[in-house]
Amino acid sequence: MQNWPLTITAILQHACGVNGDRTVTTADGDSRYRTISYRELGAQAGRLAHALRGLGAERDDRVGTFMWNNTEHLVAYLAVPAMGAVLHTLNIRLSPEQIAYIANEAEDRIIIADASVAGLLAPVLPLLQTVHTVIVVGDGDVSALTGVTVLRADELLSAQPTEYEWPEIDENSAAAMCYTSGTTGNPKGVVYSHRSSYLHALSTCTANALDVSCGDTVLPIVPMFHANAWGLPYAALMAGANLVMPDRFMDGTSLIDLIESQRPTVAGAVPTIWNDVMHCLEKSPGHDISSLRLVACGGSAVPLSLMRTFQERYGVCIQQAWGMTETSPLATVAKPLPGVTEERQWQMRVSQGRPMCGVEVRVVDDEGHPLPNDDVAVGELEIRGPWITGAYYLGRDAEKFDSGWLRTGDVGRIDPQGYVTLTDRAKDVIKSGGEWISSVELENHLIAHPAVLEAAVVGVPDERWQERPLAVVVLHDGALAEPAELREFLADKVVRWWLPERWTFVAQVPRTSVGKYDKKTIRARHADGAYEVVFL
Amino acid sequence: MQNWPLTITAILQHACGVNGDRTVTTADGDSRYRTISYRELGAQAGRLAHALRGLGAERDDRVGTFMWNNTEHLVAYLAVPAMGAVLHTLNIRLSPEQIAYIANEAEDRIIIADASVAGLLAPVLPLLQTVHTVIVVGDGDVSALTGVTVLRADELLSAQPTEYEWPEIDENSAAAMCYTSGTTGNPKGVVYSHRSSYLHALSTCTANALDVSCGDTVLPIVPMFHANAWGLPYAALMAGANLVMPDRFMDGTSLIDLIESQRPTVAGAVPTIWNDVMHCLEKSPGHDISSLRLVACGGSAVPLSLMRTFQERYGVCIQQAWGMTETSPLATVAKPLPGVTEERQWQMRVSQGRPMCGVEVRVVDDEGHPLPNDDVAVGELEIRGPWITGAYYLGRDAEKFDSGWLRTGDVGRIDPQGYVTLTDRAKDVIKSGGEWISSVELENHLIAHPAVLEAAVVGVPDERWQERPLAVVVLHDGALAEPAELREFLADKVVRWWLPERWTFVAQVPRTSVGKYDKKTIRARHADGAYEVVFL
Repeated sequence: MQNWPLTITAILQHACGVNGDRTVTTADGDSRYRTISYRELGAQAGRLAHALRGLGAERDDRVGTFMWNNTEHLVAYLAVPAMGAVLHTLNIRLSPEQIAYIANEAEDRIIIADASVAGLLAPVLPLLQTVHTVIVVGDGDVSALTGVTVLRADELLSAQPTEYEWPEIDENSAAAMCYTSGTTGNPKGVVYSHRSSYLHALSTCTANALDVSCGDTVLPIVPMFHANAWGLPYAALMAGANLVMPDRFMDGTSLIDLIESQRPTVAGAVPTIWNDVMHCLEKSPGHDISSLRLVACGGSAVPLSLMRTFQERYGVCIQQAWGMTETSPLATVAKPLPGVTEERQWQMRVSQGRPMCGVEVRVVDDEGHPLPNDDVAVGELEIRGPWITGAYYLGRDAEKFDSGWLRTGDVGRIDPQGYVTLTDRAKDVIKSGGEWISSVELENHLIAHPAVLEAAVVGVPDERWQERPLAVVVLHDGALAEPAELREFLADKVVRWWLPERWTFVAQVPRTSVGKYDKKTIRARHADGAYEVVFL
Repeated sequence: MQNWPLTITAILQHACGVNGDRTVTTADGDSRYRTISYRELGAQAGRLAHALRGLGAERDDRVGTFMWNNTEHLVAYLAVPAMGAVLHTLNIRLSPEQIAYIANEAEDRIIIADASVAGLLAPVLPLLQTVHTVIVVGDGDVSALTGVTVLRADELLSAQPTEYEWPEIDENSAAAMCYTSGTTGNPKGVVYSHRSSYLHALSTCTANALDVSCGDTVLPIVPMFHANAWGLPYAALMAGANLVMPDRFMDGTSLIDLIESQRPTVAGAVPTIWNDVMHCLEKSPGHDISSLRLVACGGSAVPLSLMRTFQERYGVCIQQAWGMTETSPLATVAKPLPGVTEERQWQMRVSQGRPMCGVEVRVVDDEGHPLPNDDVAVGELEIRGPWITGAYYLGRDAEKFDSGWLRTGDVGRIDPQGYVTLTDRAKDVIKSGGEWISSVELENHLIAHPAVLEAAVVGVPDERWQERPLAVVVLHDGALAEPAELREFLADKVVRWWLPERWTFVAQVPRTSVGKYDKKTIRARHADGAYEVVFL
């Protein structure tokens, strides 16, 4: 068979060739949108590659991006890997110190940044050791960006030719990198190869995954600055689906306007976003979001109530998927099997899903021995496959790898048909009297109570039991609920010794940069006595 | 990223693991069917691998199959490549001399054969130089099989353990091989790697291709003994779709029974088969084949009338696809783009389709210069990609390869959206007065005439014009049509100078072993004067 490497370049050429008429549209705010074809996108990628080469970018040099989901970010997604450099997406929601740590470790040379986030980038610049140039996309004041060469993308690119002689690339060479969100310890770099990105996108387009075709319009709300927007941009380009980008307009109202006007068929975002959309739709009825045939949802467990509401009230299927920065990220997809009862379908849909072909998963006990896929045995999830990282950048945290398998740090069980149910992060499991309590299961049950908007459960020290659960609850505006009532609500859903005695009510739950509950902070605040805790 | 090779072994393990409950069903004739799960299929594959190793099969040894589409053939599809040997599917429809030529060149050691085709294998055996053992599957008299060790599969396998320690395999090593049908010159061997088979199956499962999911039941009617049944078996195993196999019961009535009882959703077969099914349905109405959501059809151009009839009368979408033994085979798929007029949709559907991501196509002129994709420029189609062969076995016919591209021997044009329209085989193009006449276009128009069952058009020598078309026509039972009437029927469909002056009516058109019109024979018969030709 021919030696035809699996590369981002191949995706670029397929997208700008036979799919050249398809389009990418970006929100400009106030219901305004701008659209270009994939053919024009390819021309922009050619211009950017010339510009970067002119600025000294060479093979394997890291080019950072500090951008929302928009057309210009997509141009960088194509140009940087296809020219042989490495796309390094920087998470704009991290602290300046974290961003600088990451850019310095990765030795980024050039950063492409949206003008709208210049204010977030400015405090980072004095901390950077290797960046010499920032290319600013869009209008806006950039006088705060000092200490580096600052160029305007418009001026820089307009002078460049649109055709670039894309080099031949080894499919195993680095295409992109992204750092983990660093909820435990320092962020760690994950390097994606051309091969892994290609196989991940191809697998995303299969019928068992997100089934992306040339008939789709894909809306990645999940940020392109973290875990490749779940690979949706590359999958859409590969399939010849149109893309719609929200840029920074990600509040519920803006998203509903975008959905009604651009009619995407596939979207991806964390549950919080869909929660916002749902509340907006409830407050302001009469909107139509039924163009969406499939909403991929992950990042944290998707509540059953959210899935049911979208299905029954808006005709939209929310499909849970699971993965992490280290897994490119799509690894399992909760598509139900045919020919099962409705109850079993919902069981499958609330699980984290089953592995795509190419991904192998197993749960192991404390000694690393594989446990049976019987939906009962609980252990740490391990994973391997062609788009699963085999090592962190610079060999950090080598103990996360177990003879070819990645130790995910997630705890759960697997059923005989391969559906994975994650019950906790290994570090968030509550160890009570020698047994494990799943914080996530308690949270899922609590969120189903009509008065509860959000709920986080963490383990706190307990003299008798070692640890006991603390429930941190946010109530809906104007809603009232006593701890005793919530405890009673849980009583027929979990075993008796799981029921929390400690309750606290707060205005909001602290979250990490990627929108997950920040349990480290919650535990710390409790230790500080910052929360008023009710004991039952 | 992890080093995780793309192998048939991975497909086997995914199929027998999370998809272990899915089933393969084979027709036993007289409306009887037998079914086993993929878990049992995996156990059978383990047994076969042990048995083959016991018979001396080692890495890279070729193991031939001489079988219909059935469960046992599927076991060989998995066991032989996964143990590191090479699956060599032998085409039971070739002459004994051709089969022997192929098996000798490939140096097959062992052949697995259905008892039902022992009669076809017997005359081959005396001509074989390297085969030492034939394993016979199923009951039936095998006394004609002499000169080799003959073993019964049932006895051989029942003694073996079901678990086999599948070896680690380099994804670029050989998994299978198949010979071209040899309509021009000697058959040539195409060697499929594990990687090419995996990528082909994965791409087949994407939404733009056949969209095979765990909700499907796949019916490969196209033979597993040629071009891997278009990759449908591996795609179904990968997706966790059920499989239904027709074995040797491929007449229209048997297929309709199979479709009604097993309710496949996806099927693949050449147009002739669907033509038979259509005529059966017309003769015996009241059958329901609407379980089929998608019928992949290729091997020769699919008449528009056939697609329309299936769509309008039976609610079944026939989707044309194109490929060849050398291309694994799926290369282009005629799925229409969304948002186009119905007329344009049908134009897309009657084309050979557009390339799947991973496949690149171009047309080149006589000097090998690429021509534009403008749907006008006509040239030879060249193709490349990760499942396109880079060389024939033993380096035969090296002139078929043009600096990394395979020269397909097909002539056609490509439109700006990538849809390929093949107008002829390079060798079948009719060169008349310095211009080209497409035999295939004339055939497609002729077949639309109500009196015409089949039509083949070949170029025959002409003193004035160098070549002129001869139309070879088979009429429906009892139908009548004069050449003048058929010529008149064509007059508003093609340019005037394409209209054939030479017509002949025959009982059937000679076909090759894979069911294509055998134009070499047709031309030869005409030279012999075996046909009575009417001149207009």
